[in-house]
Amino acid sequence: MSDPILVLGGDGYCGWATSLHLSAGGHQVVIVDNLSRRRFDTELGIQTLTPIASIEERVAAWQQVSNRRLGLEIGDLCDWDFIADVFARYRPQAVVHFAEQRSAPFSMMDRGRAIFTQANNVIGTLNVLFALHEFSPAAHLVKLGTMGEYGTPNIDIEEGFIDIDHKGRRDRLPYPKQPGSWYHLSKVHDSHNITFACRLWGLRATDLHQGVVYGSSTPELEGDPRLVNRFDYDEIFGTVLNRFCIQAALGHDLTVYGIGGQTRGFLNLRDTVRCIELALLNPPGAGEYRVFNQFTEQFSVVDLARRVSDTASRMGLTPRIAHYPNPRVEMETHYYQACHTSLLTLGLEPRYLDDETIQALIEVGIRYSERTNLFTIRPTIRWCQDSTQADAVATRRQ
Amino acid sequence: MSDPILVLGGDGYCGWATSLHLSAGGHQVVIVDNLSRRRFDTELGIQTLTPIASIEERVAAWQQVSNRRLGLEIGDLCDWDFIADVFARYRPQAVVHFAEQRSAPFSMMDRGRAIFTQANNVIGTLNVLFALHEFSPAAHLVKLGTMGEYGTPNIDIEEGFIDIDHKGRRDRLPYPKQPGSWYHLSKVHDSHNITFACRLWGLRATDLHQGVVYGSSTPELEGDPRLVNRFDYDEIFGTVLNRFCIQAALGHDLTVYGIGGQTRGFLNLRDTVRCIELALLNPPGAGEYRVFNQFTEQFSVVDLARRVSDTASRMGLTPRIAHYPNPRVEMETHYYQACHTSLLTLGLEPRYLDDETIQALIEVGIRYSERTNLFTIRPTIRWCQDSTQADAVATRRQ
Repeated sequence: MSDPILVLGGDGYCGWATSLHLSAGGHQVVIVDNLSRRRFDTELGIQTLTPIASIEERVAAWQQVSNRRLGLEIGDLCDWDFIADVFARYRPQAVVHFAEQRSAPFSMMDRGRAIFTQANNVIGTLNVLFALHEFSPAAHLVKLGTMGEYGTPNIDIEEGFIDIDHKGRRDRLPYPKQPGSWYHLSKVHDSHNITFACRLWGLRATDLHQGVVYGSSTPELEGDPRLVNRFDYDEIFGTVLNRFCIQAALGHDLTVYGIGGQTRGFLNLRDTVRCIELALLNPPGAGEYRVFNQFTEQFSVVDLARRVSDTASRMGLTPRIAHYPNPRVEMETHYYQACHTSLLTLGLEPRYLDDETIQALIEVGIRYSERTNLFTIRPTIRWCQDSTQADAVATRRQ
Repeated sequence: MSDPILVLGGDGYCGWATSLHLSAGGHQVVIVDNLSRRRFDTELGIQTLTPIASIEERVAAWQQVSNRRLGLEIGDLCDWDFIADVFARYRPQAVVHFAEQRSAPFSMMDRGRAIFTQANNVIGTLNVLFALHEFSPAAHLVKLGTMGEYGTPNIDIEEGFIDIDHKGRRDRLPYPKQPGSWYHLSKVHDSHNITFACRLWGLRATDLHQGVVYGSSTPELEGDPRLVNRFDYDEIFGTVLNRFCIQAALGHDLTVYGIGGQTRGFLNLRDTVRCIELALLNPPGAGEYRVFNQFTEQFSVVDLARRVSDTASRMGLTPRIAHYPNPRVEMETHYYQACHTSLLTLGLEPRYLDDETIQALIEVGIRYSERTNLFTIRPTIRWCQDSTQADAVATRRQ
């Protein structure tokens, strides 16, 4: 390999797994991270279920296990001097960009965190775009967006663009976005900014609108205890399926928000790392901005709860599904049909959710049960302070 | 009147005219401004064609002329302590929000100004939304957006939303946005954020997607020389029709960018102030986010140049239309048909562009000719540093 791939946010849940997967595949990988995810844990009194090593220990362990070197640059994308220096030194062939505040509940905690989320994500990404333009204009930007950018429209969700027939004319236009948190909005802002940068400067970008990721591991992560990935189960950073499995392991209620009819796209962490690699191996042309919807299956929240409950029961546990007042402003039953063929066309072979995967996740919860703090699971961050208003708004939208 | 109307950005071109119009109409008006528009002039070595008084002199003069008092608060929307204090003290019934960096060329000058524009506009507006939620949740937010949010789609532009039939289903969704500068992008980000705040907190907002404003005055501005409005003709803050008239007055080429087929919506400043008032007098319901396209006529740039040239010739001047390399990344010929019926339905009686208006603008240029600096007119801010790339990109989009 010649020029390296920068993995921005390479110390995070998806970023660390991706860094190792790309390194194992023979790519020269440089992790760029400000370690803010670890700082959030400290500030919020939460922690990853799995004990993770420092980034320096991780990099050293990977070199011992694989004999491959990971570059490491500690710094903040919002610091132009830092990012310009990194891009100027490495002149990357590609940039995988995970480096954003990625929790919707975090962004809904208070005004300060709402503004932090939008400023951090939007300005960081703008700096990446300017750095690409200045130092690596032919590099491929693989940006992590979210399926949550689309919201829950009453028509099929396409991959980034939609052909619209209107008053006898037709155009292919950006798919309308209806995000449901200050965090999801930051991703929509990014998508618009990246689209413009491609048109303006001829940059090339793949915007991966990713679904909800579940799973704790990939083959690369299993080579050494110091390589273990972080695993979040709390109400702020935990995603729904992972959280249900930990709840089942610990005898905690499976916390379904409201009716649980919220349907979303999901994928295994093992497919995440493969999707990133497929995007990298098949770059878009100069000036092209493309969107891939990155998920493999749709589930409703209550369906997932039942799946976890069934598996847990077979394991001899006594899981209980409980419906909590929904802290979010969202529809609890709605149409949902989202296209996700681009990555399949490029060769993705999905690893669909099976009992074995659910059982493995429950076993993670059992193994690390002494590290859990049940108080961090229960939803306390409300989208509206007045839940009556939230119910009314959600009802009005149905 | 009971509770006041805050006019954020009330010292600017549209903001000052609106403040006086609302005050003359019997509303209790408080101007909130950080005077950044005056600071940009100083920093960039440009100035308003018309000599404007300080904001304190303006407010004093208006009190002498009209016997009406304008409130005045000097501070920055990005300063939460300031904006929270203002909202807590006034508990406004409505907020008219002009207070953003509003020049596309300014946002395209360099990375610093691109990021300043997005951070300033997005964070300032987020603070306004949080202040409304906390201190005046029933107040009506009248926000200045821009027709430039839509770009130039190949189908008719509707007012904020579009009914889409797709694969046998139908939904009314936000109209897709294709903005053409970092500034226009900031307005798109705002629109998404405001939409969410209305859904989340039940705020009520009117997002005025305004066209290009022309004109130098309104009746209220003519009562005293100290009330005179600012008038920008430079390449950064000058808008196209105003600039053509000044060019004609001074014997400068009328600077058409490229072919000049760029078609946009336009309106007279006298209609701007009336549109704001109509929106205020007809507020939306709680939780409602609505968009009005605020312009009265469509023109292509080269058509406007010809209109100005014809009037100037009749005045005995010798205008010349010159086609300059287009510094922007935009299509120079394209379909453009934009709906703008909402404000007409509310009672707007448009003041269409006529020779008298053009002549009055040319006379402004003649009157203040000794204050002009022709070097500030010529386009030097290029969307791309490589104009070949800009041409190629624009061609590719056609």
